[in-house]
Amino acid sequence: MDKTNVRLVEEIFRDAKFIHALGIELVGCGFGWCESKMAKSEGLQQQHGFVHAGALMTLADHTCGGAAASTMPEGKDVITVETKVSFLRPATDKQMICRATVLRSGRTLVFVEAEIVVERDGTTAVVAKASSTLAVIPRRPSTN
Amino acid sequence: MDKTNVRLVEEIFRDAKFIHALGIELVGCGFGWCESKMAKSEGLQQQHGFVHAGALMTLADHTCGGAAASTMPEGKDVITVETKVSFLRPATDKQMICRATVLRSGRTLVFVEAEIVVERDGTTAVVAKASSTLAVIPRRPSTN
Amino acid sequence: MDKTNVRLVEEIFRDAKFIHALGIELVGCGFGWCESKMAKSEGLQQQHGFVHAGALMTLADHTCGGAAASTMPEGKDVITVETKVSFLRPATDKQMICRATVLRSGRTLVFVEAEIVVERDGTTAVVAKASSTLAVIPRRPSTN
Amino acid sequence: MDKTNVRLVEEIFRDAKFIHALGIELVGCGFGWCESKMAKSEGLQQQHGFVHAGALMTLADHTCGGAAASTMPEGKDVITVETKVSFLRPATDKQMICRATVLRSGRTLVFVEAEIVVERDGTTAVVAKASSTLAVIPRRPSTN
Repeated sequence: MDKTNVRLVEEIFRDAKFIHALGIELVGCGFGWCESKMAKSEGLQQQHGFVHAGALMTLADHTCGGAAASTMPEGKDVITVETKVSFLRPATDKQMICRATVLRSGRTLVFVEAEIVVERDGTTAVVAKASSTLAVIPRRPSTN
Repeated sequence: MDKTNVRLVEEIFRDAKFIHALGIELVGCGFGWCESKMAKSEGLQQQHGFVHAGALMTLADHTCGGAAASTMPEGKDVITVETKVSFLRPATDKQMICRATVLRSGRTLVFVEAEIVVERDGTTAVVAKASSTLAVIPRRPSTN
Repeated sequence: MDKTNVRLVEEIFRDAKFIHALGIELVGCGFGWCESKMAKSEGLQQQHGFVHAGALMTLADHTCGGAAASTMPEGKDVITVETKVSFLRPATDKQMICRATVLRSGRTLVFVEAEIVVERDGTTAVVAKASSTLAVIPRRPSTN
Repeated sequence: MDKTNVRLVEEIFRDAKFIHALGIELVGCGFGWCESKMAKSEGLQQQHGFVHAGALMTLADHTCGGAAASTMPEGKDVITVETKVSFLRPATDKQMICRATVLRSGRTLVFVEAEIVVERDGTTAVVAKASSTLAVIPRRPSTN
């Protein structure tokens, strides 16, 4: 039986207004992983025309949240404790894909990592790599 | 003589469209520090109604960039290498203030930290703490 | 009444064999802070003769543990969840002092930061800065 | 032609006295990766009898250094800028293996990640995961 908490992952992407504002969309999820995408747009730019580090951190953080959520039993939810993101290359591409994977889902803490990749010249390039810790909390009703 | 690169700091806040989209504003700067603010709004919310971790990370990252930029000589600029943000408390307040301070501004790297504080019950509470590394790069013309 | 859990802090420094091996000593503690020191020695060197980043990380991590422990009630202990350390300057000095400060001590998590400083040319220089998350766990008997 | 800077990797493990003190040994390396091992010993213990987080951080940091070094051209060396390590499970096993992989080796910065694994009940368990940034510096003679 698949224990993936698909409903919680979908809610996390559906009910977070900031995620909509950035154009971030859920692509798919399974037990312990989540994939999302974000299209480049003018509103995401920093001063040099690249996608802002903050937009990439948001994409990584939220997708880590999705991956962690996929492992939660009924009545539980997750919240970010800390996230570190390394910026390997400037993000100048039309679309960014983020894949988050749970390293360990414990009773109180979930460790997740994510990478943000782009298609460039026919190959995949990693533009950012994230490492995140989340805390397991009781589920509360969504605001939406 | 004040060596603060005020012009670069102002440009960084003026020309980053993502920063405008989030309502982040420069409050002030000096040599090795930068202060900014962000007002709570619906568009910044995550699924529980709190300000999204990604919005807080953006505020911290950009203000760290401002602090680092304040120490740059003519012809130099900065770009984020990595940022870690710890989330100490949920951000539910009307306004967040971010203060970034340079720990060390070297020839090729700048180390900066930042805290995001809110006024709560008449006292100041820290909601997030960031630690960031930036690289010194040649200045290129702004896109705006 | 002083709620500082001095006994737990002292045990942490007394019973950790690795800490003795590195010559790390407790200098003092209070509620939410801890200070320790480490003397430079050949055994701590990396390949260029500087103090190894791993020794600095150990000093920072353990002192963060001490600061977190100082806030624990009876029956509780702490364990490191994650630690990030930035290396601002090479550590070439005779003695390193580490000061850790609790940013927030919660029911399940404690956020701590630490800086490692040296005396250099009559002033204090920061050689490393750490940011650490610890989990609150039930206290178990010490192995010593 | 294999561009792996094997000599630099071997020197890094040979000339770092702290690494010998901890019993860390180079297992192998190639272009962009490095593997090392560390045997559990009393001297590495923290207060509960587990391997100290600082010993794990040292293992991860140094092996990241080895992986970064493997990509360096003649005349270049690396030094750690920052390292973050997440502790997924207590390390109670006889031997720890660390595998570091370069995410990006640039002209001035190298991004590396590492995992520390143990054999437990016939399977491999990850006890720690590290993310590190290193700076490329001119090579200086080794102290040994």
